[in-house]
Amino acid sequence: MTDETYALLCDFYELTMSNGYFINGFCDKIAYFDVFFRKVPDGGGFAIAAGLEQVIEYIENLRFSKDDVKYLKDLNMFSDSFLEYLSNFRFTGDIYAVPEGTPVFPNEPIITVKAPVIEAQIIETFILLSINHQSLIATKANRIVRAARGRTVLEFGSRRAQGADGAVLGARAAFIAGCEGTACAMTDKLYGVPAGGTMAHSWIQMFDSEYEAFKTYCELYPNNSTLLVDTYNVLKSGVPNAIRAFKEVLLPRGITKCAIRLDSGDMTYLSRKAREILDKAGLTECKIVASNALDEYIISDLISQGACIDIFGVGERLITSKSEPVFGGVYKLCAIEGENGEVIPKIKLSENVTKITNPHFKKVYRLFENETGKAIADQLCVYDETIDQTKELELFDPEATWKRKTITDFTAKELLVPIFIEGKKVYKVPTIRETRNYCKEQIDSLWDEVKRFEFPHEYYVDLSQRLWDIKHKLIEDNR
Amino acid sequence: MTDETYALLCDFYELTMSNGYFINGFCDKIAYFDVFFRKVPDGGGFAIAAGLEQVIEYIENLRFSKDDVKYLKDLNMFSDSFLEYLSNFRFTGDIYAVPEGTPVFPNEPIITVKAPVIEAQIIETFILLSINHQSLIATKANRIVRAARGRTVLEFGSRRAQGADGAVLGARAAFIAGCEGTACAMTDKLYGVPAGGTMAHSWIQMFDSEYEAFKTYCELYPNNSTLLVDTYNVLKSGVPNAIRAFKEVLLPRGITKCAIRLDSGDMTYLSRKAREILDKAGLTECKIVASNALDEYIISDLISQGACIDIFGVGERLITSKSEPVFGGVYKLCAIEGENGEVIPKIKLSENVTKITNPHFKKVYRLFENETGKAIADQLCVYDETIDQTKELELFDPEATWKRKTITDFTAKELLVPIFIEGKKVYKVPTIRETRNYCKEQIDSLWDEVKRFEFPHEYYVDLSQRLWDIKHKLIEDNR
Repeated sequence: MTDETYALLCDFYELTMSNGYFINGFCDKIAYFDVFFRKVPDGGGFAIAAGLEQVIEYIENLRFSKDDVKYLKDLNMFSDSFLEYLSNFRFTGDIYAVPEGTPVFPNEPIITVKAPVIEAQIIETFILLSINHQSLIATKANRIVRAARGRTVLEFGSRRAQGADGAVLGARAAFIAGCEGTACAMTDKLYGVPAGGTMAHSWIQMFDSEYEAFKTYCELYPNNSTLLVDTYNVLKSGVPNAIRAFKEVLLPRGITKCAIRLDSGDMTYLSRKAREILDKAGLTECKIVASNALDEYIISDLISQGACIDIFGVGERLITSKSEPVFGGVYKLCAIEGENGEVIPKIKLSENVTKITNPHFKKVYRLFENETGKAIADQLCVYDETIDQTKELELFDPEATWKRKTITDFTAKELLVPIFIEGKKVYKVPTIRETRNYCKEQIDSLWDEVKRFEFPHEYYVDLSQRLWDIKHKLIEDNR
Repeated sequence: MTDETYALLCDFYELTMSNGYFINGFCDKIAYFDVFFRKVPDGGGFAIAAGLEQVIEYIENLRFSKDDVKYLKDLNMFSDSFLEYLSNFRFTGDIYAVPEGTPVFPNEPIITVKAPVIEAQIIETFILLSINHQSLIATKANRIVRAARGRTVLEFGSRRAQGADGAVLGARAAFIAGCEGTACAMTDKLYGVPAGGTMAHSWIQMFDSEYEAFKTYCELYPNNSTLLVDTYNVLKSGVPNAIRAFKEVLLPRGITKCAIRLDSGDMTYLSRKAREILDKAGLTECKIVASNALDEYIISDLISQGACIDIFGVGERLITSKSEPVFGGVYKLCAIEGENGEVIPKIKLSENVTKITNPHFKKVYRLFENETGKAIADQLCVYDETIDQTKELELFDPEATWKRKTITDFTAKELLVPIFIEGKKVYKVPTIRETRNYCKEQIDSLWDEVKRFEFPHEYYVDLSQRLWDIKHKLIEDNR
């Protein structure tokens, strides 16, 4: 949670390579690296970029403490001049990134770093870690939010998170992606994500009876009474006791807003029965919260079975993205700067054709159809290309170049925006609510076909003709 | 990574409940909570407890800062007297725990907290988060280490971890469970887990040729040259260039220790071919490191196919426990203290019989057969029971009480040791290497049947007759 010593939160090879670059006179060599991913988790149609704010904080505070340098010196692997260099280390390069909350697709840069190669290497691990973690959770949370079709989704997973910032920053990412709140108090304090929550089973067990526990709670928090009804028996004990407490404590005060929470058992059956009993008792405004091992598939199923659930509290399957807990963002060299400042594109080949990188310092355009406002495709271009949206544009599939189509009447929007230029922050970080609203708007610009959970339409990420030509020349040259 | 504000790293309901306990005069009410889990991840036969050291640090530093209290005050939900109480909050209770590195089984306490109920509630989330995270990673890492059958396993996953302490503390847990090192420099600095690593593909790409990149590296780190051979073509380019660099730079200096790393392609085929080529070139001491999407299943398969791999670098599938990324530890009330200081057992019922908790303040004994030193079973007892190992002991299956057996010639070892008594730390935290050795010894005390990856023998976790009677009376009373 602190940045003090995050300089060493890097893979050791960043340091051995950097020492090597330093000794071999590569210190001022400018390199370009792209962050991109190859596959959307859970077979989804898009991911949501998140974690940039933490990257920005990290870069701004990045330095090696005396302690860090001493640790490295004691390993007897690094030259004194390199250690001296690290003592004064600051990031002096440029970083471009897509804003948090942007829907993103495989094989397009979501961050591009242009910096002296040592600086670019040292920041690799933290950038990947932050973007991989929060993009993973944002992507998963948004799937769950979409499955709930307008019902409220709350993040409840702190206790099952993978570490403290797994919990806190995971809850932050979940909020950006559409959750309405979290159970984690710290995420509220630090990031303004509304925290809520009422009682655990232990509250009920501490009292002599369930009714007494409920009544006491309603008296304490009459405006925020969500009663956990499954400690003994939901329908025979929990719901009747909750109704009695609501009627005795809340109704006399004119309060009709209240809720019960189901945390075990069959959610469809119990929620429908509970709804009937509550309605018969006149408590039609009482909400039903469900919170047991939920994810997008179970929520979809519950809704399609007519479960009467107003609010879903989602724990471990969201905060760890349980069904696919890894976001495979990578950090790949795409160009270096030549002697005369020219950009020399670089490529990494692979036996596996889809793993060949897109070379060069690039721009990413998202093309929106003017008539509908919907996103048609993304196009990667060389950094000095510009799309003229007043003209028609021919797109083609980079894997099957004979598949071509021409678009007109579109708006081309650049996705990568400058975050740091020459080490100075040039980006105003939006508030978390601005980011959340932006995320929602951008997802609304995607066709439903792209948003399907299973076998979604594969959104087009194309290359400009010039970039395609450069890539294929490099493949030929390197064979 | 800092503890400063971890007091608020709790579920919001801990605070609403605590305020309720405070106002209702439960402030001095002593409660007992157990941490336990119900299912070993990946269908394994045992888990490894980890994360206690971070719990200890958390408890020692636990306080609410002025900022924390102000955050809560501004919510207008908490009484002033409770906020005043939080301003002076310290943990004053007792904590018992199994030492880190202990193999543990479902339904037995791995931590027991005895404290005034508010204190016990406020620490719930952090304790679970820390124990769940590190026990998960330790358990997974040990599976991978066992699959490697004596070959070295290194943790390489920082960039895919779920947040910063996902990376750093995950690498710590992996080391406890038998990994020999990590790629994460910070884990080395903070916890003394040896960090290593040599080069990324970008190192190769920065040079005009692969050979030049290799040669430069060997000159820099002649005693630590692991060359990444898959940037262009492993067998046609990478391995021949590595051999040339080793022969030109290392052999003249009398160095024969070196390695190549494979990071893509078919590991069985490539490692066997590379081994042949290396051996023919006389580089029989050159090790082969493999590091692409590995886990216990793939490692087992590679070994059984005769892959010539000496060292496995394991990334995302270890650091996130990808196949099962949640350790389901829970925190359940098991007793309260009565007016006269007596311990009153509490139970939580459930429709699902296996989810019914084991009530009471308990001891856990592990019973070792003296002849073999192997663990026979664990027995949960009431806190004031003692097992007399000079006598014979009858064990029975708590679900099928007619299954009984009598053991003699055994040693009974208590697993839970005091960590805090009346808020004071009474436990000396072992060094990480002591914990790692202890872990290995303890795993050696398990029968092979329990260590099987698929469908292992279910280790016995029994109840003493007295505890069983108490539990079943409570079930009857609560029905």
